[in-house]
Amino acid sequence: MLQNIRVVLVGTSHPGNIGGAARAMKNMGLSRLVLVDPQFFPHHEADARASGAGDILEKAQVVATLEDALVGCNLVMGTSARDRRIPWPLLDPRESGVMAAEQAGQGAEVALVFGREYAGLTNEELQRCHYHVHIPSDPEFSSLNLAAAVQVLSYEVRMSWLAAQGQPTKVEKVEVTSVRSADLATMDEMEGFYGHLESTLVAIGFLDPEKPRHLMARLRRLYGRSEVNRSEISILRGILTETQKAARGEPYKRKEQ
Amino acid sequence: MLQNIRVVLVGTSHPGNIGGAARAMKNMGLSRLVLVDPQFFPHHEADARASGAGDILEKAQVVATLEDALVGCNLVMGTSARDRRIPWPLLDPRESGVMAAEQAGQGAEVALVFGREYAGLTNEELQRCHYHVHIPSDPEFSSLNLAAAVQVLSYEVRMSWLAAQGQPTKVEKVEVTSVRSADLATMDEMEGFYGHLESTLVAIGFLDPEKPRHLMARLRRLYGRSEVNRSEISILRGILTETQKAARGEPYKRKEQ
Repeated sequence: MLQNIRVVLVGTSHPGNIGGAARAMKNMGLSRLVLVDPQFFPHHEADARASGAGDILEKAQVVATLEDALVGCNLVMGTSARDRRIPWPLLDPRESGVMAAEQAGQGAEVALVFGREYAGLTNEELQRCHYHVHIPSDPEFSSLNLAAAVQVLSYEVRMSWLAAQGQPTKVEKVEVTSVRSADLATMDEMEGFYGHLESTLVAIGFLDPEKPRHLMARLRRLYGRSEVNRSEISILRGILTETQKAARGEPYKRKEQ
Repeated sequence: MLQNIRVVLVGTSHPGNIGGAARAMKNMGLSRLVLVDPQFFPHHEADARASGAGDILEKAQVVATLEDALVGCNLVMGTSARDRRIPWPLLDPRESGVMAAEQAGQGAEVALVFGREYAGLTNEELQRCHYHVHIPSDPEFSSLNLAAAVQVLSYEVRMSWLAAQGQPTKVEKVEVTSVRSADLATMDEMEGFYGHLESTLVAIGFLDPEKPRHLMARLRRLYGRSEVNRSEISILRGILTETQKAARGEPYKRKEQ
């Protein structure tokens, strides 16, 4: 259904931006590029910036007007600078991505329309859009590069599409937040480690059993936060075993001598 | 507080990408750019692509190593391709933006690290990051242009930052558990600890410098998860100092005898 979404670039003057837009699209799984009256196309700078997304440039459709580009479309979203004379339904890129993925998923034909590098879309062109999309840039320096704007909207489409498919937005599944599993050290394994740690700290003279202060409590807190797993526990205990040997005057280096 | 967030580009080979990254940053309100060993900089292509963000290039800091770039950092996120041998806490760009904005808002120094155009970050560099960030691209064509990747992450930072300020852009609330603060050990303090740990493990014969396997990586992962604070670092380093004395044959118990 991502193939129901087309990216329309209107009156692009720098062919490098067409290539950059094609690459951004392909990275995000989009494939249909429509160029309205580009100043230079095809062009070697477009090919260079596309860098692996040349197939999108080859299949790109070149048309004369925005109207031609929007044939068959059910939903049109046009990128817009902040201040427009005509108030219009406005989306941020996230809302635009959600709506585009949702509508395309239901079989609608969706267009994301991007204007000229310096002048954007004309008011007449903006009026052909159902929604305007504004990328929330710094008001002091608000004009994004064209390919960068295509990247942001395509990224939001992909995020929504992945979510709609129940696919993780992270490919490797590593838990960021805490998840207790059988792989984690058990409480008694942790206790075994803390006992070993304490006797080792006494052996090297770091912990005075007469004046323990809160040293073990602080170390328990540190390792407790870390959700240590079993293989890590055996590394840590291996270190303690070697440390105790060193403390007994059996340092490794001596054996070597 | 956006000024607490630095963008670090490692080993960039195309100066145009440095300019594109600077423009993307400035559009999103970020200003601190650090370049680690760029192949060409300053360069006219960087200036051309920056297009209005020349001030960011002028203020950019050029350093020799990633370590230099991360001095003073409390939270480091590195962009990563999908397949890595060592599993690591992974964020998508949205989670990364939420965490970066939140932590920077609390006074933490945050780094967003981007690798080389073709080779990305090395495993060693990735191990210096608390989190890896993967932009959910199409697996068939997954490598984003460098400036495009900077655009996506900077955009997500801005979306979260606007939401945190109550400014309109309707960011969904993503749960982030960890709380980092200025009290946490900085990256250079953590590096000092890891260096000390490594030399101690060699001294007690636990780590064979000829066959290091992934020992240090696994330990970095363990302590990295733990969000070690400054007073904990001094405890840990105290333990290492006593362990090294023991390994040198100056065990505490002997003194007592």
